[in-house]
Amino acid sequence: MKEEEFSEWYHRMLEENNIVDIRYSVKGMPVYRGFAMFIIREMQRYLESLLEENGHEPVYFPGVIPEDTLGRESEHIAGFEDQVYWVTHAGKTPLERRLALRPTSETSMYEMFSLWVRTHSDLPIKIHETVSVYRYETKHTRPLIRSREFLWNEGHTAFAMREEALRNIEEIKLIYTKLINDLLCIPILINQRPDWDKFPGAEYTIAFETLMPDGRTLQVATIHNLGQHFSKVFNIVYENEKGEKNLAWQTSYGPGFGRLLAAVIGVHGDEKGMILPPKIAPTQVVIVPVLFKNADNQQVIDYAKKIEETLTKKGVRVKVDYSDEHPGAKYYRWERQGVPVRIEAGPRDLKDNKIVVARRDTGKKEVIRLESLDISRLFDEIADNMREKAKKKMESKTYKVKTIDELTKRVGEGIVEAGWCGEKDCAKQIDQVGTILSITEDQHECATCGGRGRRIIVAKTY
Amino acid sequence: MKEEEFSEWYHRMLEENNIVDIRYSVKGMPVYRGFAMFIIREMQRYLESLLEENGHEPVYFPGVIPEDTLGRESEHIAGFEDQVYWVTHAGKTPLERRLALRPTSETSMYEMFSLWVRTHSDLPIKIHETVSVYRYETKHTRPLIRSREFLWNEGHTAFAMREEALRNIEEIKLIYTKLINDLLCIPILINQRPDWDKFPGAEYTIAFETLMPDGRTLQVATIHNLGQHFSKVFNIVYENEKGEKNLAWQTSYGPGFGRLLAAVIGVHGDEKGMILPPKIAPTQVVIVPVLFKNADNQQVIDYAKKIEETLTKKGVRVKVDYSDEHPGAKYYRWERQGVPVRIEAGPRDLKDNKIVVARRDTGKKEVIRLESLDISRLFDEIADNMREKAKKKMESKTYKVKTIDELTKRVGEGIVEAGWCGEKDCAKQIDQVGTILSITEDQHECATCGGRGRRIIVAKTY
Repeated sequence: MKEEEFSEWYHRMLEENNIVDIRYSVKGMPVYRGFAMFIIREMQRYLESLLEENGHEPVYFPGVIPEDTLGRESEHIAGFEDQVYWVTHAGKTPLERRLALRPTSETSMYEMFSLWVRTHSDLPIKIHETVSVYRYETKHTRPLIRSREFLWNEGHTAFAMREEALRNIEEIKLIYTKLINDLLCIPILINQRPDWDKFPGAEYTIAFETLMPDGRTLQVATIHNLGQHFSKVFNIVYENEKGEKNLAWQTSYGPGFGRLLAAVIGVHGDEKGMILPPKIAPTQVVIVPVLFKNADNQQVIDYAKKIEETLTKKGVRVKVDYSDEHPGAKYYRWERQGVPVRIEAGPRDLKDNKIVVARRDTGKKEVIRLESLDISRLFDEIADNMREKAKKKMESKTYKVKTIDELTKRVGEGIVEAGWCGEKDCAKQIDQVGTILSITEDQHECATCGGRGRRIIVAKTY
Repeated sequence: MKEEEFSEWYHRMLEENNIVDIRYSVKGMPVYRGFAMFIIREMQRYLESLLEENGHEPVYFPGVIPEDTLGRESEHIAGFEDQVYWVTHAGKTPLERRLALRPTSETSMYEMFSLWVRTHSDLPIKIHETVSVYRYETKHTRPLIRSREFLWNEGHTAFAMREEALRNIEEIKLIYTKLINDLLCIPILINQRPDWDKFPGAEYTIAFETLMPDGRTLQVATIHNLGQHFSKVFNIVYENEKGEKNLAWQTSYGPGFGRLLAAVIGVHGDEKGMILPPKIAPTQVVIVPVLFKNADNQQVIDYAKKIEETLTKKGVRVKVDYSDEHPGAKYYRWERQGVPVRIEAGPRDLKDNKIVVARRDTGKKEVIRLESLDISRLFDEIADNMREKAKKKMESKTYKVKTIDELTKRVGEGIVEAGWCGEKDCAKQIDQVGTILSITEDQHECATCGGRGRRIIVAKTY
């Protein structure tokens, strides 16, 4: 799909399905409406329960960070200082110290970690919070994708040993993969970012991204190995069994819920509208009774209610569409909203206890008996199909190229694997066409100079 | 309990049980730790599901409000302008318009309502969000009770008819009563505030409060009838069936989660520590296996695991305390944390499949067979007892007085019913000893001058 075409479709989805309202009077800060918040809350609860099973505790840290706290780690503040919103007054009183709206919470949290950690028995610390963060983006903002306030979950840790921090990173990779791929059916690339593109203050950053229909990649989550950078400046020190004092090893990570929602809309949608994975759909099944004008529809209405009751009892989120619109108009509206399953039931069906089951993901219709409807299996089948379809689409848009000309041609269509020798001059040419997402360990000749190099992953990014 | 005594006990509870940490470097903004956030999240989910069953949609509105939007309703801004934190810069750039950290969201939301409402079919609007709000308190701050950032849920509505707004107020009264009294077992007074104490911009305010052990009342939630004050200035206008344009009728409301948690701690606690209602306790049952030094404890450990498994299967949040502390030390620690049920199991119990069940609320111990433990019934009994006990305590601290001397004596001990003639001079004397929480419709002679007046409710407040 072309860029403008996708952009137009995407904004139409956001508006017609009441997802966000971009007319709020602060630019770059949209209002999240019921539909969006329902889905985001499903993601949030799923993620929080995985993190807590893994030993994380939920916390809430203040939304503002004093200037001196935010500034303690020099790379960190250098990375964020242009993006920070500053509170300078309370009422009519100027504040003694400026307060930053949290752009991320490493500094506020680690100030407290240094109070919480004394001996090895105070470790590990694994905490998470779901909050909004504020970053004054100077790039073009896009609702859910790049906004000046966004909703995320951030996890933060401190460990006694480096190996524990590394194991934690592997565990979080699995947890985020469950969230993104299992729950949301979105295929992901997991890559270590080039050194120049890591989180300010980290040793390295691992990014999760998916491919949007316009050929750009969208980063939806990151994990940072912070090493001992922050524990050093915040003095997070523990005493081990031998009485020796050591710095803690730290990691931090977070997925953005707005970007995940944008990915759900973009990755799964089609020309008819959105397609939602059953587990997160605000309405999982819509029942459309086939009603006739000037006829006694009571039996059909009763039958629809019976179907509704059967499903509600199973914990399914159901709606019945009694409106007097034309069936085609009803189908159009529910399809656009991405409702995974539509059940049609008319006067002829109810005699044999039959229903018509229409799947949003395949568009297929099937007539079955009501009692043979295994809804949770159907939901699983839909999710499996969506996951598989999205994966194949992303694979089909992954290209391996040798030359800068091929690279130039393919970048913008999808994810491109090329080579780079490591020289700045060669990187400059690559940078002009796309972003180097990752530099792998594999050998690959340089797309620019043809010299020996390593395999890189390049794409246009959001 | 005396004021200083309670204050000392309360702060000890917060610290020893890891509820909040007040050492964060912004005064009046504590860090909520895992224990607090678990309980707050239980409250939040319970409340959100009640609100959504009632037709509310979850939303998320930006955390900042432009100065001109916040200032549109004159009473509203007059009430909040001294308390607002102002964002003035983004990075190094001064902002064109100052942005307020939301002290409450009427203005940001109603700006959007005016875009969302065109005809009567766009009404009612019923939305809610769980967010943090910021108010620069000049009074003495107290963790969970009065802080400069606090977590709440705020509900906002717009209706076509005044009667609908009034019915909504009654529905919210029931919902908040369920949250506070059913879930948290806290007795409440529901009173309309005197006119001088209403929410800035409201027609009137209804407050929910409970009584703390030091004799002060704590306001935990409010409901505001906004009439057409905000719909007028924000131009929330709908066209009815006849084509006439009318202003919408509005309400807003919110409980504070920090204050509710403070009430749970204060209302139910005793000299041993906290007592938590089973439904919200992070740990609902602690199993203490009776272990002996230099003995083979394997059978007892296996038995404890069996009990744990039995309860976990029923969805109970259980912990087993395998630590090698003295049993007394273990009991002390778990009692202080308010765990509702402790199960002890030693070598003699396991032969007959017996357990010792100790209730935190009554302190009673009972030996029963494991298979006869009906845990959900036990939880209900505990909650019922806690609710009843707290109610009786509040009733026993409710006084009816006739004179200003009696009022002076009783205020500070609890809730006092007195009389007031309506004259300012008489109110001044009453104000010197306590706060008039409400003026009822009942007749009652004035405590100050003895003249004809109405019954008032007076207390020392937080």
